[in-house]
Amino acid sequence: MPQSVERWVERIRSGDSRAIARAITWVEDEAPEAAALLNALRPVAGGAYRIGLTGPPGVGKSSLTDRLIRLLRGLGHRVGVVAVDPTSPFTGGALLGDRVRMVDHALDPGVFIRSMGTRGRLGGLARSTKDVLDLLDAAGYDVVIAETVGVGQSELDVVHAVDTVILALGPAGGDQVQMLKAGIMEIADIFVVNKADLPGADRTVRLIRYMVDLAHRRGWRPPVLAASASEGRGVEDLWEQILRHRTYLEESGEGRKRRLRRVEDAVWDQVLARVQGAFLQWKAARPDWERVLEEVANGRRGLEDVVDEILHSVDFSAGKAEGGVL
Amino acid sequence: MPQSVERWVERIRSGDSRAIARAITWVEDEAPEAAALLNALRPVAGGAYRIGLTGPPGVGKSSLTDRLIRLLRGLGHRVGVVAVDPTSPFTGGALLGDRVRMVDHALDPGVFIRSMGTRGRLGGLARSTKDVLDLLDAAGYDVVIAETVGVGQSELDVVHAVDTVILALGPAGGDQVQMLKAGIMEIADIFVVNKADLPGADRTVRLIRYMVDLAHRRGWRPPVLAASASEGRGVEDLWEQILRHRTYLEESGEGRKRRLRRVEDAVWDQVLARVQGAFLQWKAARPDWERVLEEVANGRRGLEDVVDEILHSVDFSAGKAEGGVL
Repeated sequence: MPQSVERWVERIRSGDSRAIARAITWVEDEAPEAAALLNALRPVAGGAYRIGLTGPPGVGKSSLTDRLIRLLRGLGHRVGVVAVDPTSPFTGGALLGDRVRMVDHALDPGVFIRSMGTRGRLGGLARSTKDVLDLLDAAGYDVVIAETVGVGQSELDVVHAVDTVILALGPAGGDQVQMLKAGIMEIADIFVVNKADLPGADRTVRLIRYMVDLAHRRGWRPPVLAASASEGRGVEDLWEQILRHRTYLEESGEGRKRRLRRVEDAVWDQVLARVQGAFLQWKAARPDWERVLEEVANGRRGLEDVVDEILHSVDFSAGKAEGGVL
Repeated sequence: MPQSVERWVERIRSGDSRAIARAITWVEDEAPEAAALLNALRPVAGGAYRIGLTGPPGVGKSSLTDRLIRLLRGLGHRVGVVAVDPTSPFTGGALLGDRVRMVDHALDPGVFIRSMGTRGRLGGLARSTKDVLDLLDAAGYDVVIAETVGVGQSELDVVHAVDTVILALGPAGGDQVQMLKAGIMEIADIFVVNKADLPGADRTVRLIRYMVDLAHRRGWRPPVLAASASEGRGVEDLWEQILRHRTYLEESGEGRKRRLRRVEDAVWDQVLARVQGAFLQWKAARPDWERVLEEVANGRRGLEDVVDEILHSVDFSAGKAEGGVL
């Protein structure tokens, strides 16, 4: 870090987009600078409203985000977006779409968009996304959007980092919808059937409403909206429902619960990083570690036994956080 | 567990497919029975050759697996397959394809096929897959195949659980291939361009060979094969290359390294489960935990400080393993 942490905090809080971009790169690279910066920034975060937009590929999530950005800019809000595509090592999709979007909003200092793929590393994307949301929050954006392709478990984890989760589906999502597992239905605060100008959308909306009715118990009943991002239809309605959900979160105490869970997640992530650091340190000082693994592999020693030894002999309070996963 | 662990171990080792199916369900549900059984089975595992087959959706991975099964059955090998599709809550694909395949091999006691989606839970799929590989290994299958859609990070983790990783791509994968990140190129021991009867396959094969040449340093040079699973072409060649890779692993010492890394992964997973258990126990006995989180949320107390307190006061050696992720 060529400048002091304080200087970076200052630059980021003032909305300096080059500083923000640099900080995000540190987060992506799991550089030591990231941890120091995030610890300094978290106390000033919390002002942004956080939206998660997820759904299968091809339903028009980025068009929806785009329309939402325009609407929010018209209302005077500053908007930060992190688009996460864990499939990008295969498809490259997010990065390409990102460049197109960048151009659209390049001259607007009130918009910050960044996309993240796996960048060749195979770990930590969910954690990185949460960290970037904290960064954008601390940078003073009024609304922060995490756009994710809702596949793998870790991508779905991102929903724990936001206030309102929007699940977007396509017009022919009828069959798709019937395959949605309980876990997916339950994460959505708002459903949007996009491309509502295409056939099948009405049926899909009705089907989701029916499923919501079946699953509904008490508290917030997720609205099911139709939208056409390409035509700009339904986006104001979407924003209205987001505001209505925000009010619900505040009044019901659910918002406070979500905030505390986010803090607990962040605490737990750091505990795990430190535990891992302590283990790696302990392992490095144990020249016979490979022999131990060999014994387990050959069935001469039980796995449980080695686990017990580690838990009894590693001083977990001594470890420094290590980047990455073992 | 209605019978003793010993009885279940016996049934599974004898290849009783109903017992194996039940055990896999325990693994999926993270039931306490799973841990006990796996600990008892791991010492007898290690006899199977483990193959990972990954790649983007739609390249014909399940057809390739199918052809491989037939070839291996012809050679007298027993084959166990676990097909993992983390996208199934959205697409439902794996489960459907699985049923079709089940019918093909339903009468053959030498074949066991099981697919896993997220089953509504949003965690632990990579861990479950590794456990199922251990189960099938212990059950005496000669060759065990993990078929995964290579999206999210955790799905790619599965490659650490196998001996030979096959990366399958489509014939028009040229552009796709150029987007492959270093991390993906490096996990493949063998490349297969499937649907080689379709246009573009030759170019894709040449392109991957070129990229392999660029990336190649020393040791194993991943072969790049063309195949057409629908026509049954290239599958014998694939098996030959798998055997060649197996020989390489044995002679170079790389195989031993991979086995030890697998043991270390399993040790580490159990350490994490126990650490989490200890933390949850500690938290439950701390009625002011919510107030602590509130203080962090309000910036009155630093996150690091709470992390330090946890690492100093939780007795990690006391925890029982807990299923799931916090």
